[in-house]
Amino acid sequence: MTSVINVNLPEQSYEIAIAPSSLDQLGQQMASLKLGKKVLLVSNPTIFKHFGERAIASLTSAGFEVASCTLPPGERYKTLNSIQKIYDIALENRLERSATMVALGGGVIGDMTGFAAATWLRGINVVQVPTTLLAMVDSAIGGKTGVNHPHGKNLIGAFHQPRLVLIDPEVLKTLPMREFRAGMAEVIKYGVIWDAELFAQLEASKRLDQLRYVKPDLITYILTRSCQAKADVVSKDEKEGGLRAILNYGHTIGHAVESLTGYRLVNHGEAVAIGMVAAGQIAVELGMWQKEDTERQNALIQKTGLPTQLPSGVDIEAIIDALQLDKKVKAGKVRFVLPTEIGVVTITDEVPSDIIRQVLRGM
Amino acid sequence: MTSVINVNLPEQSYEIAIAPSSLDQLGQQMASLKLGKKVLLVSNPTIFKHFGERAIASLTSAGFEVASCTLPPGERYKTLNSIQKIYDIALENRLERSATMVALGGGVIGDMTGFAAATWLRGINVVQVPTTLLAMVDSAIGGKTGVNHPHGKNLIGAFHQPRLVLIDPEVLKTLPMREFRAGMAEVIKYGVIWDAELFAQLEASKRLDQLRYVKPDLITYILTRSCQAKADVVSKDEKEGGLRAILNYGHTIGHAVESLTGYRLVNHGEAVAIGMVAAGQIAVELGMWQKEDTERQNALIQKTGLPTQLPSGVDIEAIIDALQLDKKVKAGKVRFVLPTEIGVVTITDEVPSDIIRQVLRGM
Ligand SMILES: NC(=O)c1ccc[n+]([C@@H]2O[C@H](COP(=O)([O-])OP(=O)(O)OC[C@H]3O[C@@H](n4cnc5c(N)ncnc54)[C@H](O)[C@@H]3O)[C@@H](O)[C@H]2O)c1
Ligand SMILES: NC(=O)c1ccc[n+]([C@@H]2O[C@H](COP(=O)([O-])OP(=O)(O)OC[C@H]3O[C@@H](n4cnc5c(N)ncnc54)[C@H](O)[C@@H]3O)[C@@H](O)[C@H]2O)c1
Ligand SMILES: [Zn+2]
Ligand SMILES: [Zn+2]
Repeated sequence: MTSVINVNLPEQSYEIAIAPSSLDQLGQQMASLKLGKKVLLVSNPTIFKHFGERAIASLTSAGFEVASCTLPPGERYKTLNSIQKIYDIALENRLERSATMVALGGGVIGDMTGFAAATWLRGINVVQVPTTLLAMVDSAIGGKTGVNHPHGKNLIGAFHQPRLVLIDPEVLKTLPMREFRAGMAEVIKYGVIWDAELFAQLEASKRLDQLRYVKPDLITYILTRSCQAKADVVSKDEKEGGLRAILNYGHTIGHAVESLTGYRLVNHGEAVAIGMVAAGQIAVELGMWQKEDTERQNALIQKTGLPTQLPSGVDIEAIIDALQLDKKVKAGKVRFVLPTEIGVVTITDEVPSDIIRQVLRGM
Repeated sequence: MTSVINVNLPEQSYEIAIAPSSLDQLGQQMASLKLGKKVLLVSNPTIFKHFGERAIASLTSAGFEVASCTLPPGERYKTLNSIQKIYDIALENRLERSATMVALGGGVIGDMTGFAAATWLRGINVVQVPTTLLAMVDSAIGGKTGVNHPHGKNLIGAFHQPRLVLIDPEVLKTLPMREFRAGMAEVIKYGVIWDAELFAQLEASKRLDQLRYVKPDLITYILTRSCQAKADVVSKDEKEGGLRAILNYGHTIGHAVESLTGYRLVNHGEAVAIGMVAAGQIAVELGMWQKEDTERQNALIQKTGLPTQLPSGVDIEAIIDALQLDKKVKAGKVRFVLPTEIGVVTITDEVPSDIIRQVLRGM
């Protein structure tokens, strides 16, 4: 099973191509885009060890001249210093305007490569080859790129759309379980906010965290529906005017939990899972969502092996305070994305803090 | 005399407002743009000493909250390190998406502030308040922003259009003579490539390098026509597809001379002046331009106190070699912008190197 999603944007459109073993078609797919000959492949040593050679072989046999650059793994290295390393190698290899940077990796590599491409010679081509589930269904699509400031996440960046997103579901086989689950949190999110059919399909499936080994067609289906959801939302709102905000479902309380646990104890996907449970319950308390639907959501989260409870030791008042610092706060009002039925959400900044408190106490 | 030029771009349009003493209207002008309250003013210590207080007073009295940041002066500091300093101060002052960075300075400050604004939170507002003639008629308009890589000029950057360009011709009174003349080279360029009337007006004026002290209306006229020329060209070609190339008139050989003299002996404007003399003569040799028109151009350059001859010691073969390294080379062919009449140029990559050699030997 293979599928193609067209992302239509006013300035430039691109394809998200999803197919098992497509990593070996990378060069061929890029050749059809009339890019220049030079390619800089950016990755990290772990990912490069798994997939670097195949990517380079495919690019080379399609006639590209390939240089590569590996950066140390981890969010800690998502910095301007790493970008400078990319620039240095771009210069050494005389990357011109027509050249292309290819991001082979998770969201960290994707965000950095996208930013380097956005700012090298005022913008060259970038192709995203995401290797984590999160990168496939979320970070590789939508054009947000960037790095962290020592004192804040993703403060430095640019919008820069890829020329192609190439997804090979088979690369997920080497992904650690916990990373896979983290990506599933975003998949479930798309089910709740946008795609009731995806939600139902997930409900009907067993062993959600084993899919990538045993169900190639199902995983391709899940990737396709999730990418379609993100693409639908971002092409209706390329630069964060309004609709994009619904992608933050589960992220309001999620971000607070992530930062209060030092981005270590709980990873992003786990925090989003907890955030979705909280947001769902808030919607129920406000009479906006049916209790049965929350329970369906929570069952799905549980079946994936994601947490549905606050980690012990996290102080509820600290969460309430942290919400106030969130980027999504406007004029002191915390903005929540809340479901009204499966597949439909609404945005409100009218959630009384007592309700938030009460819901968190119940978790 | 005051004037306003509208730059119309598909995504966002903006005004270039030119008026003596307008520095004191900065806050008021910005207030009409519905920007957020926070402003970060970026400058260098020299310029800040002259104009910083007035800019801040105007902004403050219009209701803005102003923080400021000064960076060491000079092209040498047009680096990612300086950008990082801007980010740090942006963070300290919690600059949000609605905030604005204001560049108060020459092209170096303008390019850096524009780039920091392009990449802070994936793009916030920038207002350009150019204080050199070159920045007024050239670098503040068109949206090119960026910094140098240790091994190459302007390799890192982004396109980011300003929300307003505010030009107060009176700030030119403190500008060193040599810097003023350098800007005049670009003004003469606009006369030759785009605006025969501007050219004639310059011809009719005496003491071109003293204008800013004695002829406020004439300087405003010159600024207006020059900005209009650049705005016309860039709004027809926002991101360097074709027409923008004509702005490189005089820059092909100019860049070679600049780099061969180590960016010191000859400054950018002087190099462009030499480049225009050379390009004009090449056009004459090719039978494209009349001898009398070249002479008119050269007389204007001379009257401004700009050089019309190659600096002694520069090797002609070294210039020919350097041309091959220029960004404007496509498939080994050097691209020249050549005049066909005053106010009209054409682009060609069919100039035999023997003609280039012969023209340079004659200078
Ligand atoms: N741009 C956006 O719109 C957007 C959206 C969401 C998240 N993000 C960013 O994405 C980042 C998180 O991305 P992530 O979750 O992919 O983390 P990640 O990129 O750090 O990857 C997680 C880990 O998995 C390893 N890995 C990746 N692919 C592998 C594979 N196929 N096999 C074995 N190991 C593999 C990596 O080396 C890394 O150690 C964050 O920096 C976040 O800010 C960006
Ligand atoms: N973005 C573009 O489209 C574009 C176009 C052309 C040039 N540029 C860039 O512009 C830069 C050159 O700009 P520049 O020529 O304005 O040089 P600059 O910014 O270095 O300024 C020249 C000198 O004049 C001083 N100065 C500035 N205004 C003054 C004033 N009113 N009174 C007294 N001193 C003053 C500065 O401190 C500096 O020492 C280069 O980096 C070049 O790459 C950019
Ligand atoms: Zn997320
Ligand atoms: Zn110039």
